[in-house]
Amino acid sequence: MSGPLDVTDLAADLIRHPSVSPDSGESQIALGATLSAMGFTVTHLPFGDGAERTPNLFARLGTGHPHLCFAGHTDVVPPGSSAWAHGPYAGDIENGLLYGRGACDMKGGIAAFVAAVSAFLAREPQPRGSISLLITGDEEGPARFGTQKVLEWMEAHDEIPDFCVVGEPTNPAVMGEVIKIGRRGSMNVHLTVSGRQGHVAYPHRADNPVHRLLRVLHELTAVPPDQGTEWFEPSGLQVTSVDVGNPATNVIPAQATAALNIRFNDLHTGAALLGWIKTICQRYAPGTVIESQISGEAFLTKPGPEVMALSEAVQSVTGREPRLDTGGGTSDARFIARYCPVAEFGLVGTSMHQVDEHVAVDDLVSLTRIYENLLERMVA
Amino acid sequence: MSGPLDVTDLAADLIRHPSVSPDSGESQIALGATLSAMGFTVTHLPFGDGAERTPNLFARLGTGHPHLCFAGHTDVVPPGSSAWAHGPYAGDIENGLLYGRGACDMKGGIAAFVAAVSAFLAREPQPRGSISLLITGDEEGPARFGTQKVLEWMEAHDEIPDFCVVGEPTNPAVMGEVIKIGRRGSMNVHLTVSGRQGHVAYPHRADNPVHRLLRVLHELTAVPPDQGTEWFEPSGLQVTSVDVGNPATNVIPAQATAALNIRFNDLHTGAALLGWIKTICQRYAPGTVIESQISGEAFLTKPGPEVMALSEAVQSVTGREPRLDTGGGTSDARFIARYCPVAEFGLVGTSMHQVDEHVAVDDLVSLTRIYENLLERMVA
Repeated sequence: MSGPLDVTDLAADLIRHPSVSPDSGESQIALGATLSAMGFTVTHLPFGDGAERTPNLFARLGTGHPHLCFAGHTDVVPPGSSAWAHGPYAGDIENGLLYGRGACDMKGGIAAFVAAVSAFLAREPQPRGSISLLITGDEEGPARFGTQKVLEWMEAHDEIPDFCVVGEPTNPAVMGEVIKIGRRGSMNVHLTVSGRQGHVAYPHRADNPVHRLLRVLHELTAVPPDQGTEWFEPSGLQVTSVDVGNPATNVIPAQATAALNIRFNDLHTGAALLGWIKTICQRYAPGTVIESQISGEAFLTKPGPEVMALSEAVQSVTGREPRLDTGGGTSDARFIARYCPVAEFGLVGTSMHQVDEHVAVDDLVSLTRIYENLLERMVA
Repeated sequence: MSGPLDVTDLAADLIRHPSVSPDSGESQIALGATLSAMGFTVTHLPFGDGAERTPNLFARLGTGHPHLCFAGHTDVVPPGSSAWAHGPYAGDIENGLLYGRGACDMKGGIAAFVAAVSAFLAREPQPRGSISLLITGDEEGPARFGTQKVLEWMEAHDEIPDFCVVGEPTNPAVMGEVIKIGRRGSMNVHLTVSGRQGHVAYPHRADNPVHRLLRVLHELTAVPPDQGTEWFEPSGLQVTSVDVGNPATNVIPAQATAALNIRFNDLHTGAALLGWIKTICQRYAPGTVIESQISGEAFLTKPGPEVMALSEAVQSVTGREPRLDTGGGTSDARFIARYCPVAEFGLVGTSMHQVDEHVAVDDLVSLTRIYENLLERMVA
């Protein structure tokens, strides 16, 4: 190897491999070749249940501990519009900004980690611990045959790391603001309450399902499920729709429905919340049909030595003490959290998913230095 | 006059004048002629705001007091189906039953009163008080240019009676069961609560109108508006529909609506209930758009000497002590109650509005005797 790899070159090269979700895999072939050349053992892991397979990649350098893993995705969201001033796959650099789909979410993050490893190995050719990358091609899509499956494979092959950093763009405006150490869970619930139709003038001969549903929803929304924790804001339940569709003002309807969404912290599990809802329905509206979908459980990596090392790395490079946050939408970190401590730190996300997605070259350099600093703290 | 008129002949004759609501007026011309021949001063009172006029009739015999008025309608609901075994306007009698549209609702009732007056006058040619009939041709329809307008005319002409009997079919199964002395009021209310749309994950940046509406509806339905009175069952509020129509599970909607109906006793007025609703909306959902329609106010004729006289008349003819009731749907009695004490008593209503509407000839005779008995008690 002729000196450390350049983060901007690496990022631009990845951008030039179009990989709208699910990734076709070409970007991972290129990435795998780079990692092989650096000494990584690279395993391509296409998963799926049909002819179409989701490309995934696991690469590890060394076998020792601590084992630090970087997790990310090569797939990107579509350009969305043709109004790009810079081609979404051109990898143009102008005024210190690298443009392209995936620049910040998150080909830039992958490039920063690869460049960081390259720089780290140039100084420390025989690290104590080991380094790995878990790369999926389906994070922006259903994510069924991506990170989850790779983790199963890693567990079966004894490759579970001691700490994992997900390179999602976590910073709202400038580098160094936010490390995410968890995420709230989310579940959708649909309630269908049946009653007995009748004339409004004779309610004793009917059974108004709207009134039963009102009791249920009032109880569910009267008090928040908790007061929040040290790391999480209070869980919240929002009734997103109530529907009866009864046009007759003199008729008690036969059925009433409601839809609700719960964002919950780690004081709860989806199953426990469902049990709570069932109990309340049983009290006020026995026989309610409850349909539920748990999009993700809450998870938290309580700040330990690894999160502190990441925080200190951020601080030593940016001069900022990053906030340890659990807000925002989901990422593949929810799957990784089942196996090992995980935190997320990456680029500035302001332009993610937008037209003319871009990243500052300075930020790419900064993130490379942060990751390199973390490698020194953990595996040197 | 050659002896008292026969109730069955009178009823069959009225049935043979088809008068689907609004009545064209022919049945009232025939009725007016009969009443004129009996000595009544007959005034035809066509009311309306266009070319089409609603036929009404006011007839009075004598000018003294007490002044007993009989109120009814000649208009009928349509046959509805061609499956009649007896022509709806044939006035057939078979096995002691008189068939035809209006047989019990309420040409039979009008015939019974006319026959009762006829029999009464045969014995008592110079009654102390006076007797009148308030007949409308639009009770089964909008009722805008019927009883209400006749009452205004009666007030202007100093013809308001001391007591009014409405001849609607009040008996559920047999003659003598029920006198109606009032009716609950009814109002429809539609609420539209507006909030601020937003993402379910960030409820503090939104304002969920469903939650506000839930608070309002919970408060409105938590406790019945009252516990009922001596004569009325408790008022009742039924939420008949709640509608949001938000298909997105991750979106807090911008608007939520509800429809409710209140059946209220004479502890309330429609305006007072509306004020109550406004106060609750102001508390939980300021800015709620409230649309309301008061179909009718509650009314009650507290049992006094007139209602007692009617009850005793029923009892002396049928041997049954009638229940004084305030249940069921509306009738023109709600208009009359604004002017004088009013009660309703008529035939058995089981076949009203149905195919092959009919009345037992025995019941016609029985009702005639009851009305005659009342005339004796009140105006002899």
